[in-house]
Amino acid sequence: MDGRVVRGDRTRRTVAATAAAVASVEGLSGMTLGRLGEAAGLGKSSVQAAFGTKEAVQLAAIDTASEIFAAAVVAPAADHAAGLPRLMALVDGWLAYVERRVFPGGCFMVATFAEYDSRPGPVRDALARARRSWLGLLEHHAAIAQAAGAIPGSPSAAMVAFEIDALLAAANVARNFSDDTAPLEMARALIGARLGSNRG
Amino acid sequence: MDGRVVRGDRTRRTVAATAAAVASVEGLSGMTLGRLGEAAGLGKSSVQAAFGTKEAVQLAAIDTASEIFAAAVVAPAADHAAGLPRLMALVDGWLAYVERRVFPGGCFMVATFAEYDSRPGPVRDALARARRSWLGLLEHHAAIAQAAGAIPGSPSAAMVAFEIDALLAAANVARNFSDDTAPLEMARALIGARLGSNRG
Repeated sequence: MDGRVVRGDRTRRTVAATAAAVASVEGLSGMTLGRLGEAAGLGKSSVQAAFGTKEAVQLAAIDTASEIFAAAVVAPAADHAAGLPRLMALVDGWLAYVERRVFPGGCFMVATFAEYDSRPGPVRDALARARRSWLGLLEHHAAIAQAAGAIPGSPSAAMVAFEIDALLAAANVARNFSDDTAPLEMARALIGARLGSNRG
Repeated sequence: MDGRVVRGDRTRRTVAATAAAVASVEGLSGMTLGRLGEAAGLGKSSVQAAFGTKEAVQLAAIDTASEIFAAAVVAPAADHAAGLPRLMALVDGWLAYVERRVFPGGCFMVATFAEYDSRPGPVRDALARARRSWLGLLEHHAAIAQAAGAIPGSPSAAMVAFEIDALLAAANVARNFSDDTAPLEMARALIGARLGSNRG
């Protein structure tokens, strides 16, 4: 029984990670349990036994992608001081995560936000939570940076967060179209200039 | 025979416009000839006779969406002088086009670019052409504005175009998630500030 539980858990994790990778290229809506099973090296019946419905797999893919994103981008930045240094570390971490293709289709979030933003339901709700959490993190450190007198101009911290996120998302799309990393450098320079960082 | 040609042409236009509207919400990849036929008030067999393949419908949807975009955003801006006035008119036109939901899912281009940017083939090629044409238009007028001494700072015209487009695309996603037009106003203010326009 314990062995079965462990195997079931391993299957769930394998399928969720595969689903996150596939969704970064093809989106969340087109996936089928059969094709996922193939991609994960399992049968459709194993995937069905582990998750039951396509929506359950989609939600598990979002959870797994959020964990991968947190480990790749958010955690490493925590070594940097709160405020402007943390903000630039988050930007650098994000660009590196996209450049080294942690997900084959670039940023999982950019791909799936645009796909589900107009489709109400549990999948959109989960993506909206992930989006708010990321924007909230940027806004928090933008506010600390502003309180310390950094960041020229006087937009709100929410506007600074919105602008950083917009430039990163656009760089991801441009890079995917061209398979060229120049757009990532362009976003880094524009964000650096925006934040008044000499590193931009 | 003439009657049949006219009817066939009308069917093609109806299906392409329906496909563009559906794709703005659900994406291009998930559409089926059967569901499109239903949405357009035609049978699956009429759609099949008019287009043959799903890819042909997808390409027709992109053509139609590009024409709608040109009529809604690009043409009205041509009344404004080249350079900064045209650039701001394009931004205002784009925000109005999204706000009044010319496409039910907001901007057709934002929705489909993120969906297909990692999927090589004729659909991505057609979307890449539409994207280059839009960015090229913004860059052209940014360059004229810069030559006239407008736009503070010294980013290249390509960077100004990239930034404007990034802010618009992010506003579209944020608006779709929240069904709130505040992100559109935020993008307008950020772009106005970026361009050094008093209207921002």
